Amino acid sequence: MASTGPLNPESDTFENRPVFYIGQHDSSRREPLTDDQYGQFLDSGFRFVTAPITNEHFFQRVVGLYKTHLAEQEQWAQQRGLTAGQQANPSLPPPVVPTLTDKDTPLSPSYYISSLVGYASPWIDLCSPDPHISSISRQVLNLEAAYANFCGVRTIVVPGPRRDECGRGVAQYARAIQEALVANRVNIIVHMPMYREPGLEEKAQTLSAIFDIEKEAEAEAEAEKEIDLFGAWDSWHTIRSVCSYSTRLFVALRIPRRAPEKELQERWFAEPLHFLTLGASIFQQNRAGNPTLSRHHQDMINRYMRLKNTPWLVLCDVGPRPEELVALSKKMASEYPSLAEATQARRDTRRQPPNAFVGYLRYLERQQQPFSAMETPVLTNFQDWLQPPLQPLADNLESATYEVFEGDPVKYDQYEKAVFEAMTEWKELKKPTSSATPENPSNPELVVTVAGAGRGPLVARVLRAAERTGTPIQIWALEKNQDAYVYLLRRNKQEWGNRVTLVKTDMRGWEGPRLQGREGVIGKVDILVTELLGSFGDNELSPECVDGIQSHIARPHGISIPHSYTAHLSPISTPRLYADISSRVVGDPNAFVTPWVVRLFAIDYVAQKAPGHPKFQQTWEFVHPVEVARADDFAAEHGKAARYATPGVGSMGGSSGTNEHNARHCHLTFVCRARGVIHGLAGFFESVLYASQTGDGATAPVEISILPEQIDKKSKDMISWFPIFFPLKKPLYFPQDTELEVSMWRQTDDTKVWYEWLVEVYTWVGPKTRIKVGASDLHSSRKVGCLM
Amino acid sequence: MASTGPLNPESDTFENRPVFYIGQHDSSRREPLTDDQYGQFLDSGFRFVTAPITNEHFFQRVVGLYKTHLAEQEQWAQQRGLTAGQQANPSLPPPVVPTLTDKDTPLSPSYYISSLVGYASPWIDLCSPDPHISSISRQVLNLEAAYANFCGVRTIVVPGPRRDECGRGVAQYARAIQEALVANRVNIIVHMPMYREPGLEEKAQTLSAIFDIEKEAEAEAEAEKEIDLFGAWDSWHTIRSVCSYSTRLFVALRIPRRAPEKELQERWFAEPLHFLTLGASIFQQNRAGNPTLSRHHQDMINRYMRLKNTPWLVLCDVGPRPEELVALSKKMASEYPSLAEATQARRDTRRQPPNAFVGYLRYLERQQQPFSAMETPVLTNFQDWLQPPLQPLADNLESATYEVFEGDPVKYDQYEKAVFEAMTEWKELKKPTSSATPENPSNPELVVTVAGAGRGPLVARVLRAAERTGTPIQIWALEKNQDAYVYLLRRNKQEWGNRVTLVKTDMRGWEGPRLQGREGVIGKVDILVTELLGSFGDNELSPECVDGIQSHIARPHGISIPHSYTAHLSPISTPRLYADISSRVVGDPNAFVTPWVVRLFAIDYVAQKAPGHPKFQQTWEFVHPVEVARADDFAAEHGKAARYATPGVGSMGGSSGTNEHNARHCHLTFVCRARGVIHGLAGFFESVLYASQTGDGATAPVEISILPEQIDKKSKDMISWFPIFFPLKKPLYFPQDTELEVSMWRQTDDTKVWYEWLVEVYTWVGPKTRIKVGASDLHSSRKVGCLM
Repeated sequence: MASTGPLNPESDTFENRPVFYIGQHDSSRREPLTDDQYGQFLDSGFRFVTAPITNEHFFQRVVGLYKTHLAEQEQWAQQRGLTAGQQANPSLPPPVVPTLTDKDTPLSPSYYISSLVGYASPWIDLCSPDPHISSISRQVLNLEAAYANFCGVRTIVVPGPRRDECGRGVAQYARAIQEALVANRVNIIVHMPMYREPGLEEKAQTLSAIFDIEKEAEAEAEAEKEIDLFGAWDSWHTIRSVCSYSTRLFVALRIPRRAPEKELQERWFAEPLHFLTLGASIFQQNRAGNPTLSRHHQDMINRYMRLKNTPWLVLCDVGPRPEELVALSKKMASEYPSLAEATQARRDTRRQPPNAFVGYLRYLERQQQPFSAMETPVLTNFQDWLQPPLQPLADNLESATYEVFEGDPVKYDQYEKAVFEAMTEWKELKKPTSSATPENPSNPELVVTVAGAGRGPLVARVLRAAERTGTPIQIWALEKNQDAYVYLLRRNKQEWGNRVTLVKTDMRGWEGPRLQGREGVIGKVDILVTELLGSFGDNELSPECVDGIQSHIARPHGISIPHSYTAHLSPISTPRLYADISSRVVGDPNAFVTPWVVRLFAIDYVAQKAPGHPKFQQTWEFVHPVEVARADDFAAEHGKAARYATPGVGSMGGSSGTNEHNARHCHLTFVCRARGVIHGLAGFFESVLYASQTGDGATAPVEISILPEQIDKKSKDMISWFPIFFPLKKPLYFPQDTELEVSMWRQTDDTKVWYEWLVEVYTWVGPKTRIKVGASDLHSSRKVGCLM
Repeated sequence: MASTGPLNPESDTFENRPVFYIGQHDSSRREPLTDDQYGQFLDSGFRFVTAPITNEHFFQRVVGLYKTHLAEQEQWAQQRGLTAGQQANPSLPPPVVPTLTDKDTPLSPSYYISSLVGYASPWIDLCSPDPHISSISRQVLNLEAAYANFCGVRTIVVPGPRRDECGRGVAQYARAIQEALVANRVNIIVHMPMYREPGLEEKAQTLSAIFDIEKEAEAEAEAEKEIDLFGAWDSWHTIRSVCSYSTRLFVALRIPRRAPEKELQERWFAEPLHFLTLGASIFQQNRAGNPTLSRHHQDMINRYMRLKNTPWLVLCDVGPRPEELVALSKKMASEYPSLAEATQARRDTRRQPPNAFVGYLRYLERQQQPFSAMETPVLTNFQDWLQPPLQPLADNLESATYEVFEGDPVKYDQYEKAVFEAMTEWKELKKPTSSATPENPSNPELVVTVAGAGRGPLVARVLRAAERTGTPIQIWALEKNQDAYVYLLRRNKQEWGNRVTLVKTDMRGWEGPRLQGREGVIGKVDILVTELLGSFGDNELSPECVDGIQSHIARPHGISIPHSYTAHLSPISTPRLYADISSRVVGDPNAFVTPWVVRLFAIDYVAQKAPGHPKFQQTWEFVHPVEVARADDFAAEHGKAARYATPGVGSMGGSSGTNEHNARHCHLTFVCRARGVIHGLAGFFESVLYASQTGDGATAPVEISILPEQIDKKSKDMISWFPIFFPLKKPLYFPQDTELEVSMWRQTDDTKVWYEWLVEVYTWVGPKTRIKVGASDLHSSRKVGCLM
């Protein structure tokens, strides 16, 4: 979709709310507009129109072709004493549609051709039960797509499958679209209803209808059928699956007369919506006789308009009719207005769109909520944009990267609050500091260490919390990045009055704090502060790093900020990310086993909130420090040495098992009511930075969270972390009343940490019967694992 | 599996029936056998025994480790006033199993180690509901697999998952096996029951059982459950899927007390069976008190013994007990027999196996049906062996290839019969020959053409049929292969008395028969004989070739032999071929879209015969010659020229549509009662070579068929064609009561022919409700299509 002026933040017409791009489709139009007519359309407030690719002449030829074929069949049957239709002649080849002549198409290359949207012949029926009609339809589509492509049309709309019925015709329809996509370079937009409204579906005058292929019994069966809310979506899913999620395949979504439940709206929200099409019948009349939309319709459109690629609106069979345009055109031609007059006339109409429907949509446009702080162009650009995960332990970050991370006041406010409460409570509970000794019991300085200090944001917050609580502290800051270390040295001198003891070291190799004023004595740390969390909590190896330094934490009173963190999952449908990852596989064979960091937006959370099965579920938890009993043994005995020696513990796939206590496993069950498809798992984290130890329950823990359901409550507007996405190699389809069983592992050897994930699909087919219907591969990110 | 002497046709001990390779497993064995004991086992008729990898000492250490862990948990809970088990300590790391010491394992490298089969500790429970027990079990498996691997053991047996329950533990079990496979080079054989016999399953003394992890309620629920015939297979399917169909993963299948229905037997027939294990309890006693098996058990074993890789038989807890062996060994040691005496003693026992169960199995072995003519070593080697499809039009065949094809008397007998009947009927019906003209009405010679004569087998048969029917003929033989042409020239001179007019030409470029004795007159062909059929009928382009020559067939009487042919499909489960194709993908990216020619054997036809839905279903038909009305137009107007010019017909994906009349499409529904998985579609053909034209119905048509249900009736022992296999990129799982909807297309442009296929899964979940549960990709063989 081309970025139009008002959508382009670089443009001076940039508006701070979504922009409506409105077009028109006239199903009775048999000729494309003349240049003049097109100009008038633009003046009526429309930005584009659809154009038929072939005309009535071609239609009649195709009908004639099929009639000849029928006659031949009949003749053959008569010769054999059969009644017509009783048996087809096996040796009679099916009709072959001749190529187009100049009489068959009104379309030619023209100056506005690339802004035209071609509309394939509405009378084709690609999934007709009659094999010859479906074959003819497929040939017509190929002819039209090829000719439109030749003329320079960039996009054609194809009427969607006429039926949703199981398996039969949709596969055939899908294959025809796939063939047209492969043979041409045009984009194809399939015109789909949001759902089929029983009794409200117009019977299209297709070849099948003309030749009465639909048997009456079938038509009745159709009318009796219950409403199948997800039937149209399901057909679309088959089509795009057969087309391998082509990035040239889009949906034109027909807005229904009755807005459906949110679940279905959200399903389509995740699909590549190019057009929303609106017929006159979905509008109501207000008291002034002008068209309006119901609140439900407005909400639905407003929601879709927040998409990064805003869908275009197409008014169907609304606006000037061809005959009106012809009259208008003749009038203009007869009057020979001067160029100035014509321009003025156009300006007039532009000021006051003559079309009431367009006028109403423009009104809706003005009512759109302005973009919020979370919808800045920069943040919007991150929507559904895959970022490879960081390797913070193996790689040194650049200053600019630190700066981005530091730019999140919410996160650091929470950290300061956590340190503040920890210091306050330390005083209240009269906990001894580790700098106090029998010989020097009056030394009340709290020993604080910021491990992984980066450019010092946490150091600054710790100093401020100490000041606000009036707590005397000795503070250490550890940093392994030699370049950030220079920055810290300078800041210590300039800002912190050299109050901070800076140590250039990997925290896992630190000797511990040499207490001030006590030559040669290595003490313990009262408060350890780290910011090592990733989008999935533990995915940037916070557990391993804090383990590596926890032997320096004072016992029993010393604490770690964060105190604990949990990882969370929810299965999602995200065709866009699936297509994106598929396109990367050639260059990056691990693309489907990489946990991507991505600001998930045009996605559908398929799971429902159900008793015992929330929409977002916790996979596991890490708590710091780990129990002394054995964790310190790990750190002491097997810590760094374990990489080189094989001590007498454990054996995990050839490793020594040193880090096995940080392995995790979970098995979660998600409940899905409607049928759908998932492309992977969305991952999040929450962390308790500090939980009050008084146990009175009066003080809420200080938390941060990126869980969609919690972030506004716990850390609103925090932007430091986007979610993580664990893809599936193959989309996993599931029927209604499904339970998705997710198995996930956090695995580790002596050198790295990775995840493995597997999804199985079980469906309830009765009150007591649950059947397995499918499963994903076992996915492993070992090859792109996080290095320890 | 190593090929043993009697299985090797090169060996002089080669026996003309399946050979039984019998071993023993003793579940109470805690130490491997000494060399002497092992020798005695061999003398009792066994060929191998299993050996434990670790001993009681290790078991007690692991139990102790877990007890310590429980005590720590309890202590933590008491400190917090919780009852034990109420809440786990989140910061207490799980137990890590120490590596083995010399006290933990009796196993050492020894001279017979590679013939030993290691048996993993039976007390591990990889899918225990207790995460710590499953973690310990996984660690134990890793330690044991690694140590066995070190010692030189090539294969270890691992007890299968203890439960089949949906989703929960099996995924975890599967992942543990996968980890052991990746970390070691040993083969892993999972010991699975054929199905779980309710009430007959022995409760294994696993860690879970010892620590009472299985709650009583669960156990009761288990006992109440209905028999789930395919539950164990389903668990196996999960395991091998998670292990990516590793070729180092096998099944040891426990033969149940009650032989199950054929459907389940056939399911396992297609799996990589390494062992069949037989407990004493499946045997009955005959009147003499000796063990025997029921007829059902015998049939089942006989069937499995026809596999190319014959499974080994393992008698479980049958045969000498360790204490007996110890006594025996001591006796031998105390007696110090001379080498000659010992050898003699062994010979004696060998002659008369001391074990009654082994004796009975040896009896069964002698009862095996000798290998049939279709089970020669050569034909057996072709079982499940993938052959890339021929390109007979583009490539010239070698003489040896022709010779193989000619070596099938059944096929040529049928051809001769067809020609014989055609000639007989020609005479009976007094049809005029095309060599007769008004000027020369008395010329009664039938004009026969063999197109694609190769080395001449059909020419010989035509000559013989003419002789047998006393029909005067003029015969042409066309061949495009210049080298085969030389062979024909020689044969014509030496065998056929130069009666045959040989033309070196592609049949599609032939000018037609220049009638004998009528200078310059090009006539028509009365009988056209071709052998262009492939495994799927039309897959070697018979339709296109015959089209290219059919303008020379005399009308209305001229005929084509074959008259017509049909293609047929059935979905199959074939893990072996799936694994094979998967392993080829790196070198051949089209491996999964190639229709392979393969002698299908270790496969499972998953479809049932159901009303209106046979097990094998016809996809489409071709009839020759095509109706004159338009097919000749194709041939004449657009034949060969169509490749270079675009005539005014059709448009199929950029081609001119010349061959569009040979495109086909079908949609088939297959019914599956039990759940399962498919890996692709098996394809077959049938052909009517000649159908009587008298219409009296008295004469059966002359047919050939490779359809499993028809071949014995129509062309028994015909070996010219193996089936064709259309693979699926991903195995497609389906629940019980499923309908597999198969869409298939025969596609064509101006240069080649290819197939496309798609399978969708729909399941009945009530008398009226059918839900979609999955679908394959759309597969296309275009890239490996057959060149025209």
